[in-house]
Amino acid sequence: MKRAIGIGLLGLGVVGSGVAEVLVSKADKLAEQVGALLVLKKVLVRDVNKQRMAKLKPHVLTGNLAEVLSDPEIDIVIEVVGGEHPATEYIRQAITKGKHVVTANKEAMAKHGYELLSLAEKNNVGLRYEASVGSGIPLIATFQQDLASNDISAIYGILNGTTNYILTQMAQQGLDFPLALRQAQELGYAEPDPANDVEGIDAAYKLAILSSLAFHAQFDPQDISCQGISGLAAQDFRYAREFGYAIKLLAIAKRDKDTVEMRVHPVFLPEDSQLAKVDGVYNAIQVEGDLAGTLVLYGEGAGALRASSAIVADVLTISKNIYRGVSNVLEVQLNQKLAIKPMLNLETRYYFRLNAVDRPGVLAQISKVLGDNSVSISSVIQKESDPLARTAELVIMTHSAKEEAVQKALGELRQLAVVNEVVSFVRVEG
Amino acid sequence: MKRAIGIGLLGLGVVGSGVAEVLVSKADKLAEQVGALLVLKKVLVRDVNKQRMAKLKPHVLTGNLAEVLSDPEIDIVIEVVGGEHPATEYIRQAITKGKHVVTANKEAMAKHGYELLSLAEKNNVGLRYEASVGSGIPLIATFQQDLASNDISAIYGILNGTTNYILTQMAQQGLDFPLALRQAQELGYAEPDPANDVEGIDAAYKLAILSSLAFHAQFDPQDISCQGISGLAAQDFRYAREFGYAIKLLAIAKRDKDTVEMRVHPVFLPEDSQLAKVDGVYNAIQVEGDLAGTLVLYGEGAGALRASSAIVADVLTISKNIYRGVSNVLEVQLNQKLAIKPMLNLETRYYFRLNAVDRPGVLAQISKVLGDNSVSISSVIQKESDPLARTAELVIMTHSAKEEAVQKALGELRQLAVVNEVVSFVRVEG
Repeated sequence: MKRAIGIGLLGLGVVGSGVAEVLVSKADKLAEQVGALLVLKKVLVRDVNKQRMAKLKPHVLTGNLAEVLSDPEIDIVIEVVGGEHPATEYIRQAITKGKHVVTANKEAMAKHGYELLSLAEKNNVGLRYEASVGSGIPLIATFQQDLASNDISAIYGILNGTTNYILTQMAQQGLDFPLALRQAQELGYAEPDPANDVEGIDAAYKLAILSSLAFHAQFDPQDISCQGISGLAAQDFRYAREFGYAIKLLAIAKRDKDTVEMRVHPVFLPEDSQLAKVDGVYNAIQVEGDLAGTLVLYGEGAGALRASSAIVADVLTISKNIYRGVSNVLEVQLNQKLAIKPMLNLETRYYFRLNAVDRPGVLAQISKVLGDNSVSISSVIQKESDPLARTAELVIMTHSAKEEAVQKALGELRQLAVVNEVVSFVRVEG
Repeated sequence: MKRAIGIGLLGLGVVGSGVAEVLVSKADKLAEQVGALLVLKKVLVRDVNKQRMAKLKPHVLTGNLAEVLSDPEIDIVIEVVGGEHPATEYIRQAITKGKHVVTANKEAMAKHGYELLSLAEKNNVGLRYEASVGSGIPLIATFQQDLASNDISAIYGILNGTTNYILTQMAQQGLDFPLALRQAQELGYAEPDPANDVEGIDAAYKLAILSSLAFHAQFDPQDISCQGISGLAAQDFRYAREFGYAIKLLAIAKRDKDTVEMRVHPVFLPEDSQLAKVDGVYNAIQVEGDLAGTLVLYGEGAGALRASSAIVADVLTISKNIYRGVSNVLEVQLNQKLAIKPMLNLETRYYFRLNAVDRPGVLAQISKVLGDNSVSISSVIQKESDPLARTAELVIMTHSAKEEAVQKALGELRQLAVVNEVVSFVRVEG
């Protein structure tokens, strides 16, 4: 039995500082749970001379990774550097040095999860990543353990708090995207370069991680079809409301025999569905299992405290096992062969908004293009939007149609002389 | 390494049959996860001659508990008999015989959890009970593992699907309690004797279990203050809506230093809160943690498949550990000394509905009683309800007040000659 468990921390940004704070301020309570003290031995930082939180002793800081990884008293390495490089290499090296690893790194786990988990298994150490998706919302362990008896048929996730905050502002305040984004940036909810969030890339990483757990297979996040929210405008939310929908950026994985639909894009969601009611910076994940039925897990998906909740929980799990002399290895079971279903094979309903010339016969031309492509219209709203320019706004909801047909029809609509622009395009879910 | 893991099943009612069905129909998938076959060796039933599901071989059935517990090939015993006796004795005997136990029994775990968990620790076996609260919603493991780093300040649970179904019908269809109950019974959502559900006893068992995990302490479910839903009428829901609330039967545990408020009763919940939107047979639990923030876990809390999801997940966890040669013992850490805060010390807002004589000066008399007890009124609605009998319906919402003062005031109101009846009484939460 170990009397103390040594911890090395890689990164002392917002999340890293939060984790250090928790490890120090909750030291007694954590020790009571584990049976041994958790001691923060070394913290890798870029600049050891920068002013840090008061509770960290200066000799704990180092600018040299090798000092952390070669310390024989460090059992667990926490990686909160973030991003693909050099974090992935840090994780790999820590594992190879026989350290258990806890990471919050969605990009590293989405792109290199299988390799890293296999490496951990080979090196007989644990690799846990609860904080990588949904922060403090219990998701990874839920799939690994509580849902293990289920065949999962679908995952629907609001996995990015930044975009959900922006969409909520657009819906509730009637803001257009650029203004809503600027407000989110001013509040610190969006990065100066927001592309990763608003283009759906962050959500795609998280979807890849959850899907690999749900379907026991490997997925490359780059194969996930991604559409961001920057094309939406305030009036799309007004039309959505008229039709009884909310607009959310959803990450969707649906299993259909040996294929999985995987996609991240804005959707029209029926306004009385659980996920439609998730507002602001909150995240929520809906899971459909053959035994558990519909589950929804809801919470804040970002922030130093939220991430610390999951990271320190992972550290506790590993520490208890170390203390009890129990293996921390999780067998990697990603042996299912599942292909991602091509996006063009999708069948769903669609909303689109066009700017067209306002003269007789325009709707007939547009309807004909859709009809010729077997895309059947369920509702049309036409509004005279600019009397001077003689342009009209046309909103179309379709019945269920094939994505391939819809894309072909949209291409042809763009060619029509009477269509100035296909302004927005949103798929309907549920 | 074991080539097969033997399972004994106690009880073959609705849940037991569901579990047997899953173990048989998913045998290959479960074996692949564990690395060994899970074999249903023996099933304890009351009548071995009764017609059973086709997939169970007749020699598997037995009417004799000893045959299950003394079978050396049985590693895990699943208890789905339910109720306190004899199920508690069955669990105790199974543990003493060195069997790992998986149970769905909220009453046994609420009343005897500490003793049974300690006994399991002493006998070096696992005792898991994920299905006992919220069925397939991951709750037990969530507290044991994912929230382990948190100090939990509060739990709010819609923990009983039967009452939530009845309340939803009352709210949406305008039904009174007796009719809504009868409908629930006809649909099989309520038992012929509904007392355990509608009086809040079932929810109190579940709250005791969750609270022991959240606060690391022992609680006797009999110490939990309980008020059922049978006193509510259709018009209470109409008034609630007028004030902007939904009515839910909530199980509440709130920590305040060394005491915990624990209570189950109907509450007025702000209609835009997450729990207010949980309708029908669904359950949901809101947890407040210092690190994780607000989490809400939502799903169906009853039914054979839902329970099987959790039970078979527990069986998988234990089986994987057996296969890997890892201990299944969970250290019992219920060492916190926390007292239940007396209900009379509660401070919150209140709603009550009175039937009073309809004549001048009545409201003055009622207001005076409340005022004399320092209960301050925030809103009053008075309606002439029966012109012939000259009675009026009076609805009062109070500002925050002490439960003790409110109860004293209600007692005095009942003594007033002008008050015919205090018809309903609901606390406000949030």
